[in-house]
Amino acid sequence: MRLIGLDPGLQRTGWGIIEARGSRLSHVADGVITSNAAEPLAQRLVALFDGLQQVLTDWAPDEAAVEETFVNKNPTSTLKLGQARGIALLAPALAGLPVHEYAPNHVKKAVVGVGHAAKDQVALMVRTLLPGVTPKGADAVDALAVAIAHAHRRGRSGLGLGAAGAWR
Amino acid sequence: MRLIGLDPGLQRTGWGIIEARGSRLSHVADGVITSNAAEPLAQRLVALFDGLQQVLTDWAPDEAAVEETFVNKNPTSTLKLGQARGIALLAPALAGLPVHEYAPNHVKKAVVGVGHAAKDQVALMVRTLLPGVTPKGADAVDALAVAIAHAHRRGRSGLGLGAAGAWR
Repeated sequence: MRLIGLDPGLQRTGWGIIEARGSRLSHVADGVITSNAAEPLAQRLVALFDGLQQVLTDWAPDEAAVEETFVNKNPTSTLKLGQARGIALLAPALAGLPVHEYAPNHVKKAVVGVGHAAKDQVALMVRTLLPGVTPKGADAVDALAVAIAHAHRRGRSGLGLGAAGAWR
Repeated sequence: MRLIGLDPGLQRTGWGIIEARGSRLSHVADGVITSNAAEPLAQRLVALFDGLQQVLTDWAPDEAAVEETFVNKNPTSTLKLGQARGIALLAPALAGLPVHEYAPNHVKKAVVGVGHAAKDQVALMVRTLLPGVTPKGADAVDALAVAIAHAHRRGRSGLGLGAAGAWR
């Protein structure tokens, strides 16, 4: 089962792909899709969408997990983030993937064990849980963390690899 | 020159298409694309995207105008609206249309003459400027108003039909 995690942002959308075999996780790929702040908003959203479609085509994940968004910033930032987040939810859904959403605190708790972990604790645990990974920046780390959180929840809820090896 | 105006919303996205020949405007079509609040967010965004793509295919507008969003509501509403708005900007941009954005007050000023016009004044002027129109609800009225505002700005800025009848 191949999972993609997404950490949406208008400037930078992080993505990370992992593979879950039972409770074993392994790193597949990660990266950051950027948009050019000098371009009109609609073109920036197209850049994010095209980038995501390329990643989905290249790596063919089976399910997607998207980080939920803090809304306690200023409203203009919230609106920008919402627009980017719309694209991050749309692209995998259009590709036929189930799309799950996780609150940042849920992700931290799943990866580090506490809901208010610091950024560098999350990064450390991502590198521990996915041996050998050198994520391409902070947004890719966050995206991998979301993918890990989803893998854990799948495992716990019995959605993981069954005895017959078939995903249900 | 066929213009589409869009008034984005997660629950209801209004669309309105008009034709501008010089300074003469005429109504082509309008409607509202809805999403089902009982469905997961990603599926709702797919419904909006699919609906918009269908409208763009059916009516083949040349340019798009999208209403800018009030951000002075609560952050959760702003985020929802942002997600829907991302789709409303993406769909016409992916179809190759130039996408323009207009603030609500700009739209009201363009259609009614004052930036703080009431809803029913906008609706009255839309019906006056587009004789014979019976818009399919308040969101379709707002979408037609955005299209009218864009037509006016095109006319003023000399982007309209030139002497040779060619659009530049």
